[in-house]
Amino acid sequence: MTYCVAMSLDEGMLFASDSRTNAGVDHVSTFCKMHTFEVPGDRYIVMLSSGNLATSQYVVNTIRRMAALEEGAHVNKVSSMFDVAEMVGLELKAAISRAKEGLTASNDVDFSCNILLGGQIKGEAPRLFLVYPQGNFIEATNETSYFQIGESKYGKPIIDRVIKPDTPLREALKSALVSFDSTMKSNLSVGLPIDVLILHPDQFAPALRYRITENDAYFASIRASWGQGLRKVFQELPNPQWFESGTQ
Amino acid sequence: MTYCVAMSLDEGMLFASDSRTNAGVDHVSTFCKMHTFEVPGDRYIVMLSSGNLATSQYVVNTIRRMAALEEGAHVNKVSSMFDVAEMVGLELKAAISRAKEGLTASNDVDFSCNILLGGQIKGEAPRLFLVYPQGNFIEATNETSYFQIGESKYGKPIIDRVIKPDTPLREALKSALVSFDSTMKSNLSVGLPIDVLILHPDQFAPALRYRITENDAYFASIRASWGQGLRKVFQELPNPQWFESGTQ
Repeated sequence: MTYCVAMSLDEGMLFASDSRTNAGVDHVSTFCKMHTFEVPGDRYIVMLSSGNLATSQYVVNTIRRMAALEEGAHVNKVSSMFDVAEMVGLELKAAISRAKEGLTASNDVDFSCNILLGGQIKGEAPRLFLVYPQGNFIEATNETSYFQIGESKYGKPIIDRVIKPDTPLREALKSALVSFDSTMKSNLSVGLPIDVLILHPDQFAPALRYRITENDAYFASIRASWGQGLRKVFQELPNPQWFESGTQ
Repeated sequence: MTYCVAMSLDEGMLFASDSRTNAGVDHVSTFCKMHTFEVPGDRYIVMLSSGNLATSQYVVNTIRRMAALEEGAHVNKVSSMFDVAEMVGLELKAAISRAKEGLTASNDVDFSCNILLGGQIKGEAPRLFLVYPQGNFIEATNETSYFQIGESKYGKPIIDRVIKPDTPLREALKSALVSFDSTMKSNLSVGLPIDVLILHPDQFAPALRYRITENDAYFASIRASWGQGLRKVFQELPNPQWFESGTQ
């Protein structure tokens, strides 16, 4: 499993991904799920992936190779993030159908993969996409300024309560970390380290790239303060009158 | 979709279920998902169901009819909750396989259903089971004293943080309601009214049976206080030093 979140806010973009992969519970490894593509001063693009690791690595490698060989309209050349999303969608769909080739339905391996793709190409505003395994994709807007992939449900309530387009990046980062905390508490297959990347508009280079490991004092303090705070709020909730009367 | 939770604690048992059903987004109805079986002074049994409504209604009806006709070892006669769980499992499995009869794999209707089954039969302690659509079942223990069915992930973190066997029922009820609040915020297919039932040991009758509707002032106050409290805790979380330094 995996948990990744990406936000596109007025102040900039935030990307965060865990790094645990597992094939069954007895084959657990650490892989960075954050991949970046850069042309200094011209573009900075971030990809986060959940799902089948072979598929996502295949897609990333293919896209890197096309750029290295300067094949066609590659990631370092296209003029819009929309074109990058389309390219990622096509490669993703092709990778999945290639993996399935010659296998029967009884080989019930799930080759699918979801990809968060965000960043900025000079001449455009920053843009964020969610690319589906079917190859199609949706773009974040002011009404829905963040996407999650992987094990998204445990960590969604806190992000829903906090994130609006004008949320400062610092607050956005805190909400992302709280959301990772909730997810990691409930799903063992999501785990540290967490990769974080922040991108300011028109910089074409990350304002922050940081890896949160088990020794990170700040993340430990967030986890502790959040847990204590929740318990305090919970204890201060009013008691139901109808409960008291019902138990007479 | 559905959200149901049941807890077996030292002070007693708590059951709560939403009442929204939907077949697609344009066919939304209200059905009580809480069913009770009672022999005054001898037994009180509660069933909560998620999944296919036709299947769960079929199971409940079959079990009621067996009791009414006094057929074999029926729900009002068996001497252990374990027997009830076995009976519910068998009827559930049979109902699903009957529904599938004559249909091909291309009729991709999901007839499955999960059932929470709890209560007490005289001579035994209160017991709580989760019955799977395959007909088998697990029982709650001191280590895991609650079960959820349906849309369980959004509301799990708060229950995980609060519930232990010695949690007072009043606190357990609050955690259940907060958990419904989180779930309803994130999944439109879980909705009011919420049915709540509390069972004290050796009473064989509910200490509380209450339906929370849209006009319930207490539930509204819980939702508001919880939301405000969360935002306050969130705002008081420390800021990351590495974020500041990273953005120099």
